[in-house]
Amino acid sequence: MHRNLLLLSNSTNAGEEYLGWPRPYIDNFLRKFSVRSVLFIPYAGVNLSTESVLSSYNVYEERVRGIFTGFGVELVSIHHSSDPRAAVKKAECIVVGGGNTFHLLKLMHETGIMHSIKEQVRQGTPYIGWSAGANIACPTMKTTNDMPIAEPESFNCLDLVPFQINPHYLDANPQGHAGETREQRILEFLAVNRNSIVVGLREGCLFWIEGGKIELKGNRNLRVFRHSQSPAEYEEGAALDFLMKE
Amino acid sequence: MHRNLLLLSNSTNAGEEYLGWPRPYIDNFLRKFSVRSVLFIPYAGVNLSTESVLSSYNVYEERVRGIFTGFGVELVSIHHSSDPRAAVKKAECIVVGGGNTFHLLKLMHETGIMHSIKEQVRQGTPYIGWSAGANIACPTMKTTNDMPIAEPESFNCLDLVPFQINPHYLDANPQGHAGETREQRILEFLAVNRNSIVVGLREGCLFWIEGGKIELKGNRNLRVFRHSQSPAEYEEGAALDFLMKE
Repeated sequence: MHRNLLLLSNSTNAGEEYLGWPRPYIDNFLRKFSVRSVLFIPYAGVNLSTESVLSSYNVYEERVRGIFTGFGVELVSIHHSSDPRAAVKKAECIVVGGGNTFHLLKLMHETGIMHSIKEQVRQGTPYIGWSAGANIACPTMKTTNDMPIAEPESFNCLDLVPFQINPHYLDANPQGHAGETREQRILEFLAVNRNSIVVGLREGCLFWIEGGKIELKGNRNLRVFRHSQSPAEYEEGAALDFLMKE
Repeated sequence: MHRNLLLLSNSTNAGEEYLGWPRPYIDNFLRKFSVRSVLFIPYAGVNLSTESVLSSYNVYEERVRGIFTGFGVELVSIHHSSDPRAAVKKAECIVVGGGNTFHLLKLMHETGIMHSIKEQVRQGTPYIGWSAGANIACPTMKTTNDMPIAEPESFNCLDLVPFQINPHYLDANPQGHAGETREQRILEFLAVNRNSIVVGLREGCLFWIEGGKIELKGNRNLRVFRHSQSPAEYEEGAALDFLMKE
């Protein structure tokens, strides 16, 4: 497997600057593959303060470009392209930003880039995704935390890893609140998808996947859920090869 | 409009007994319409501790029946019926329990009861729903908090009220967590659905809707969101007729 993936739980930790914590990892990943320019997918970015969804893509592009310029890497967003599938085929590296996973998926299916990205990344094109962008590297979007504000053609995703990521994994509800905890939601998922493995990827953590090898990076444990097994915790450096078995 | 609806944010407040807080309201509603038996829709109930999804419906039915017996009202779950649409047509009252909204919607579309329930309730059959059951009384399920563990045929719902409910509405994230707040999620919904009204229905609150008249009941305010307006708060007893204008 030639897939080269950097899958981040979140862009930004509470109280920190935008894309602060993962900056050294992204920088290393880009250098490792000698990336000089990236194609940015902004479709998860939905922003009420802009006049239209299109202008919210511009705002998002500018924000992320500012960070990538710091790495000495060019960034262009796909929403400027008249032929998005061709843009994917030419890309040196694909970067998918977070936001609303349903909106991202809807646009990826509509523009046809779901298939193109899958094909390119399976042939070795490096892929970086955070939050929604990490979620859609999985077989489906069925472990997102997002609100279904848009209806995608299908819940099927890039299928670049054989397990499901729950990004922004957190352990508790706010005090006094009776809604389902994240763990309860994941157990519900497993009740109707009994052969899947779900990983709760806590904020400040990521997967570095290179040529079939997977590593967890970050200061917090990974929580792994499987049907009829107790959830298990894994630290940075733990052997996680079992996750990559299809 | 002859719709008679009791739409509850949640079944149970933190630390209280099951279906505790809404019991007097449900009792009054059932008496008001002289209901002697209800048809229960258990499809939101997905429980990992049972051997199959079907057995989790049995567990759910028993649990809710225990409460309705206390009102002197019979309860039968639709999952026993070989002709679910006929069961809906004969029902004195429809009761839709909470759980996973995606799973509920998937089964309601598959069994064809989405259309039958809509028809019956529009002709006056009383309807009680909590959490997912309140959400699906809206035009779509696009303001649910649930994880998309199952893929429904469509996000379209019963359309018994012209606005969108966000059940279990809560104001804050757990401390130190950077994921979107509920308000941010709703604003994202409004960014791509600019003509909708969304109401944040806090736990311990409900709508009593009778013949086109809507009342908020409960100890907490309702938070109303509209595109390009500041969110507004309404207390129990406030005039909410504007919500019912199609």
